[in-house]
Amino acid sequence: MKSINLSEKFEKISDHWTPKVIAEMNDYQFKLVKVEGEFVWHAHKDTDETFIVLDGELTIEFRDRTVTLSKGEIIVVPKGVEHKPAAETECRIMIIEPKEVTNTGDSGGSLTAENDVWI
Amino acid sequence: MKSINLSEKFEKISDHWTPKVIAEMNDYQFKLVKVEGEFVWHAHKDTDETFIVLDGELTIEFRDRTVTLSKGEIIVVPKGVEHKPAAETECRIMIIEPKEVTNTGDSGGSLTAENDVWI
Repeated sequence: MKSINLSEKFEKISDHWTPKVIAEMNDYQFKLVKVEGEFVWHAHKDTDETFIVLDGELTIEFRDRTVTLSKGEIIVVPKGVEHKPAAETECRIMIIEPKEVTNTGDSGGSLTAENDVWI
Repeated sequence: MKSINLSEKFEKISDHWTPKVIAEMNDYQFKLVKVEGEFVWHAHKDTDETFIVLDGELTIEFRDRTVTLSKGEIIVVPKGVEHKPAAETECRIMIIEPKEVTNTGDSGGSLTAENDVWI
């Protein structure tokens, strides 16, 4: 039961596309990520996934549309929906999802990050 | 699948201590609240509850300590733990918790807000 400062936590992250856990609520986790460039197309078949943009601009490509999110904006990607996040310049986001979720979902590949890494 | 702007949503809230739902993720909800003054002591016996301060300063009193959160800070109150939120001046927060959770938990009283109200 202590406060967690998001800016201070971001200071501990240097790489991109590697979600780091900062808090847990029931069986969900709050993860901070710095993103830049293009991620991979993927889906999470068992769960929705929430993105909150804390700084910068995040683009999420869906098969039928593209959504751009600025600082202070949030989106819930429904379970099973393919999406590809991207950011032209470094963007800071918070992801909220069940704790066992892998960042690349069912796609795998070199951008797959280790899960459950706390900072 | 569209972006939700937190500032725009806050424009639709005029009263204090009445959480308004802006998004749903699985069986969880994201709720925005403007708070000012003192809330009531209460606990949620079945779930953790997450507070994110988006503007202003929030104090959460626990039976054994007091935690003050500023903009950009987050706290998870574990299930069953009594707490009393307060804010000297208006503060904007986001609460994340399962959708059936009532704001006053097991305490009831005049500050109990209607649940599942979307803006």
